[in-house]
Amino acid sequence: MKVDGKPYRTIWLGADGATVQVIDQTLLPHRFVVRDLRTMEDAETAIRTMIVRGAPLIGAAAAYGMALAMAADPSDAMLARACTFLLESRPTAVNLRWALDDVRALLAPLPADKRRDAAYKRAAEICDEDAEICRRIGENGLGLIRKLKPRDKSGRLNALTHCNAGWLATVDWGTALAPIYQAHNAGIPIHVWVEETRPRNQGASLTAWELGKHGVPHTVIADNAGGHLMQHDQVDFVITGTDRTTRRGDVCNKIGTYLKALAAHDNGVPFYVGLPYPTIDWTIEDGVAEIPIEERSAREVTHMTGRTEAGEMATVQIVPDGSPAANPAFDVTPARLVTALVTERGTCAASEAGLLSLYPEQAKAA
Amino acid sequence: MKVDGKPYRTIWLGADGATVQVIDQTLLPHRFVVRDLRTMEDAETAIRTMIVRGAPLIGAAAAYGMALAMAADPSDAMLARACTFLLESRPTAVNLRWALDDVRALLAPLPADKRRDAAYKRAAEICDEDAEICRRIGENGLGLIRKLKPRDKSGRLNALTHCNAGWLATVDWGTALAPIYQAHNAGIPIHVWVEETRPRNQGASLTAWELGKHGVPHTVIADNAGGHLMQHDQVDFVITGTDRTTRRGDVCNKIGTYLKALAAHDNGVPFYVGLPYPTIDWTIEDGVAEIPIEERSAREVTHMTGRTEAGEMATVQIVPDGSPAANPAFDVTPARLVTALVTERGTCAASEAGLLSLYPEQAKAA
Repeated sequence: MKVDGKPYRTIWLGADGATVQVIDQTLLPHRFVVRDLRTMEDAETAIRTMIVRGAPLIGAAAAYGMALAMAADPSDAMLARACTFLLESRPTAVNLRWALDDVRALLAPLPADKRRDAAYKRAAEICDEDAEICRRIGENGLGLIRKLKPRDKSGRLNALTHCNAGWLATVDWGTALAPIYQAHNAGIPIHVWVEETRPRNQGASLTAWELGKHGVPHTVIADNAGGHLMQHDQVDFVITGTDRTTRRGDVCNKIGTYLKALAAHDNGVPFYVGLPYPTIDWTIEDGVAEIPIEERSAREVTHMTGRTEAGEMATVQIVPDGSPAANPAFDVTPARLVTALVTERGTCAASEAGLLSLYPEQAKAA
Repeated sequence: MKVDGKPYRTIWLGADGATVQVIDQTLLPHRFVVRDLRTMEDAETAIRTMIVRGAPLIGAAAAYGMALAMAADPSDAMLARACTFLLESRPTAVNLRWALDDVRALLAPLPADKRRDAAYKRAAEICDEDAEICRRIGENGLGLIRKLKPRDKSGRLNALTHCNAGWLATVDWGTALAPIYQAHNAGIPIHVWVEETRPRNQGASLTAWELGKHGVPHTVIADNAGGHLMQHDQVDFVITGTDRTTRRGDVCNKIGTYLKALAAHDNGVPFYVGLPYPTIDWTIEDGVAEIPIEERSAREVTHMTGRTEAGEMATVQIVPDGSPAANPAFDVTPARLVTALVTERGTCAASEAGLLSLYPEQAKAA
């Protein structure tokens, strides 16, 4: 999407055809800096320190990391070492392993002198494929948005989103935000309530930044405010991403998503979830019972980082000394609260039957 | 309640029988400082700058402000001037006007040389009356708590609360927290999930501080986490305060309360509201339709204040330059989501019939 009028992806090949470039997301929203990745080590650092984040983008960065490794040394030994090294940058990221396995399987049978170019080509394809998946999610979501009528008298549609499932989390377009960008680009007047998404604030920092840079009208709110806005017809639809979707349509997403789904249900507001097929876990059904929830550092709750008036980054403690904090990072929204799932193949009910209507190849053998 | 073992109220008469002392709540939770109020101007400053806050405490501080004024000059002119001056410290506070009218009506007929002592006596009574109301809310809430069984296997009861409705918002005990203090003091093992309560963070700062200082086990969480905890049987009851309660039991409280009531309802968790009778507005019925919601400064959302590692207070910006923010400060929880109201007269259903069972004098003439 655009940054001040200029189209960007989150990762791309530099003009020299060798250097990989990424937006440093650790500095957003306060500074926009492009980083050069020239070595496998640069790529590993970018993933580990969350200069790049979001499952699809991590996969793309890892694929380019393989290309950088092959440019330096296309030997079998390096091929094995690069896979292991890059895999350890974020041990639990499923897309990371998928991308590395994919590139390795392609390169292993090739002669060493063909590996560099093949790796760059495959990395570029992985990026294009992700962008295309997200573009299709956007197009399919746009079909839902076109059917909505504004509840208030402003004439604009009001969306509400939680966390960051925008282009910064993917290669381009995003998942939850792709339909919003499509609607905006199509000239539909749309405004987005952006929840700050405590404790890591990815809404207030990343989502507000990317919507603002692309020119989409938006307003940041505390996570507490969404229910009140829905009670007063200020929200026409909610759309979020998902980290994992169960076979029957339960959605595991950033902590607090469930609360907004409850409020949407209570006020008759459609609750949509945008997702690419790899987030569907066909092996599990009951998300609340079966999905283990990551407990992250208490420091994310007790401290907050931002920019001082002097323009420097600073971290402040906001909880009393001696008060413990808990930080469950995700929650599960039961399928009964989800109005529709929006995937690259179309939209469907949040149910096993709904998902199988789009992915019939996942039907269990009778 | 106690601060490190020593009993405190939020406001009290100093050992000299003239100086009024208060806890400076603007410095909590990072510093515990007692301020001396020696003049009417000191009292006005304390209310205006939120050194003291919370409706009952503001009323008590205003009453003591009248006493300080009478100590300096018990004339009719000063009596009128003090009322006007103190009333302007927080123009919309109902308890402030009530306390000033009450003290003025008492003093006006008295000879000037009796006014000082009468004002001090009445201010002390107002404090004692508020503490007694809150103690009774606590006792009545304790009756509900005694009937609960822990859902998890810890053997302890897990409460969840939003914002600060503790002793810091009153003279002693608090409203929502009074039953929790009563339970803790009675030896019932109780632990409190304290929601940080963005954007002003009164949960993370004030509630966590006062529970910790009294020795009540607690854990601070992001506002987003409550629903997840309820899904996993980690919450046995929710209890909040209220700024305004309608005739039929709708509850207007700090933004985000409604979301927790929805989650409690969805998970069969009791949702209690602690309130003293002055918060009941007998003139309105439908809270969502009839209660105007204060829109506060966007800066509360876009900036956050806390303590740096160097021990200094600092404010950081957490939202991109150019992104607007909205800050509705309260929301309304419909009575259908409230399990019981807990008042100084007892507990009742959140309905007109329930409230009239405790306050029969409010029945409308047939």
